[in-house]
Amino acid sequence: MTWVKNVKKINFKTNAPYEILIDMNLMRTSGDHIKKFSPAKQVLIITDDIVNELYSGDLTDSLIGNGFEVFLFVLSHGESSKTLQSVERIYSFLIKNKFTRSDLIVALGGGIVGDIAGFVAATYMRGIDLVQIPTTLLAQIDSAIGGKNGVNLAHGKNLIGTFYQPRLVLVDIGVLSTLSKQSLEDGMAEAIKYGLIKSKPLFNMIKNCKIEDILTDLIFECISIKQELVEQDELEYGERRLLNFGHTLGHAIEKFYSFSKYTHGQAVAIGMAYTVRSGENLAVTNSGTYEELISVLQKYNLPYEIDCDMEKLAEIAKVDKKATGEFFDIVLIKSIGEGFVKRVKKYDLKKYIGG
Amino acid sequence: MTWVKNVKKINFKTNAPYEILIDMNLMRTSGDHIKKFSPAKQVLIITDDIVNELYSGDLTDSLIGNGFEVFLFVLSHGESSKTLQSVERIYSFLIKNKFTRSDLIVALGGGIVGDIAGFVAATYMRGIDLVQIPTTLLAQIDSAIGGKNGVNLAHGKNLIGTFYQPRLVLVDIGVLSTLSKQSLEDGMAEAIKYGLIKSKPLFNMIKNCKIEDILTDLIFECISIKQELVEQDELEYGERRLLNFGHTLGHAIEKFYSFSKYTHGQAVAIGMAYTVRSGENLAVTNSGTYEELISVLQKYNLPYEIDCDMEKLAEIAKVDKKATGEFFDIVLIKSIGEGFVKRVKKYDLKKYIGG
Repeated sequence: MTWVKNVKKINFKTNAPYEILIDMNLMRTSGDHIKKFSPAKQVLIITDDIVNELYSGDLTDSLIGNGFEVFLFVLSHGESSKTLQSVERIYSFLIKNKFTRSDLIVALGGGIVGDIAGFVAATYMRGIDLVQIPTTLLAQIDSAIGGKNGVNLAHGKNLIGTFYQPRLVLVDIGVLSTLSKQSLEDGMAEAIKYGLIKSKPLFNMIKNCKIEDILTDLIFECISIKQELVEQDELEYGERRLLNFGHTLGHAIEKFYSFSKYTHGQAVAIGMAYTVRSGENLAVTNSGTYEELISVLQKYNLPYEIDCDMEKLAEIAKVDKKATGEFFDIVLIKSIGEGFVKRVKKYDLKKYIGG
Repeated sequence: MTWVKNVKKINFKTNAPYEILIDMNLMRTSGDHIKKFSPAKQVLIITDDIVNELYSGDLTDSLIGNGFEVFLFVLSHGESSKTLQSVERIYSFLIKNKFTRSDLIVALGGGIVGDIAGFVAATYMRGIDLVQIPTTLLAQIDSAIGGKNGVNLAHGKNLIGTFYQPRLVLVDIGVLSTLSKQSLEDGMAEAIKYGLIKSKPLFNMIKNCKIEDILTDLIFECISIKQELVEQDELEYGERRLLNFGHTLGHAIEKFYSFSKYTHGQAVAIGMAYTVRSGENLAVTNSGTYEELISVLQKYNLPYEIDCDMEKLAEIAKVDKKATGEFFDIVLIKSIGEGFVKRVKKYDLKKYIGG
């Protein structure tokens, strides 16, 4: 893999503004960047067992080198850690080690780690500083950006959570070299989503280029789109909802298979494919879009068909957070690069996402 | 008791602005006020067993009269309900009854109910609308105002929580007529605090008038002071900290006695008395202030002496949320109406709050 040396910096102008740095080798200089804004004496790194082996060392060294006292909380990897029980264990750890409001939490890992660490940071003593260091492509372009966090309940995914912006996001592109091909492809599903809802050029880049050649630009473009949408609508009552394209069916698929058969990206890929096909059938999406999408999903080995009763999936989807009384706000696309939100009656949901 | 008919309205200009209405009989018109802004189909009233007997009927009637579907969750009264277990039970109730992000939670009760309901509203599906209807003097002038919520852990009070503003606060002065004398006196401790940190005229009014004659004005003045401080400093990094006057020692007292021997107001009264006396001893507080404070505390049957090892209380206070590394930000007063924040070394804490 070749890496373009190309530092990028994005200033995020939410209620509490913050910076996103995109570069190689940020892990080794993380402490310097954190030291610039944080008065913390103690730092808790929250990570999982897999990421811990790979990156906790570099991160810890850099933090200690900058005078921080470093603590580590290692979760088992996987969705089953994203529970209130994990959250309570971390609260106890923080209290036992006398963490105060001026100390700091660093989320080192993928979306699951970022979600738990974000929720803990948002709620411990009414909010403690948070730094996100995402280590998967999906987390770098999506889940670590924008301030959403979440915890699962037995009844469903991310039913509990807050909006809480980090103080800094460090996107170290170097870490992607240790990712499995499947994990990269999983992230590409979200990248394709950004293209579909907002940027034909991004979609074309994904379609026509080799992933290794475009990674820095791809990450920058995806984050920029998310930034634009989140800055307009931090609490997701308007434009930010475009980011849920493919996710209504995607979440239902993940839930139906108890978060085991499909990864998040795979489920979103299927969700996008069905929503685009439904859109063409209902003549809200330009014809030919489905075919173009399928060829890109195939390029990244992402699934687009599912053998499952759509009635059942639509029923599951109806208790999604996006439901509003009898209505449901779903995201459709007119053409590639042009997403829009449509309010539909709940009983029409299947027609729009499972046709 | 005589009540002055005197509707007051305060517009709260936090990140998410909202209104506070102060009037008689607001319970019976609550549904009309809520209907004006809320698209909710379903409303969950969170209350406790005592308040439920008194006011759920009027509130429910008014909500149903405005077309809302009403659900009720009744907690046992008292601090022992303010746990994550209660929070989880309410999450399950909301999910079982298919509450969505556009539905609404109403907190009907004192500070404990407001804290739990606020935390649930802040975290359920990343935030659901909240209306506060405080039913104690303390909640009306303090805990229901300003967006703080909290849940206790075994290790301490309010260690978990967020800043989350309600959409509306309805301060029904009529409900105070059903309060016990002790509950009113409990609230007066916080009213005295507002006078000490910000308003000599308020302090004098409390000192010189009969409580029944000044209640509407008192509530309005207290909320106005809190509004000013919260608007300047929603997340409590600056001026808002003045509101913690007397609370550093007060919280430690509550914790030492497992939240049983003293009410919150009583603990704060003792905390204020010791802090003022320490201030005089250290010549940071005008002499004579302690004597004046004690006469007012006596007027409202509030305690000001405690038979307890100050070393122990100071140790407990050191793990308070206001601790910052080796330092501690405490609130002192120069004179009545003039509070200020001082950063002291942790080992000096006893000198400032327990002298």
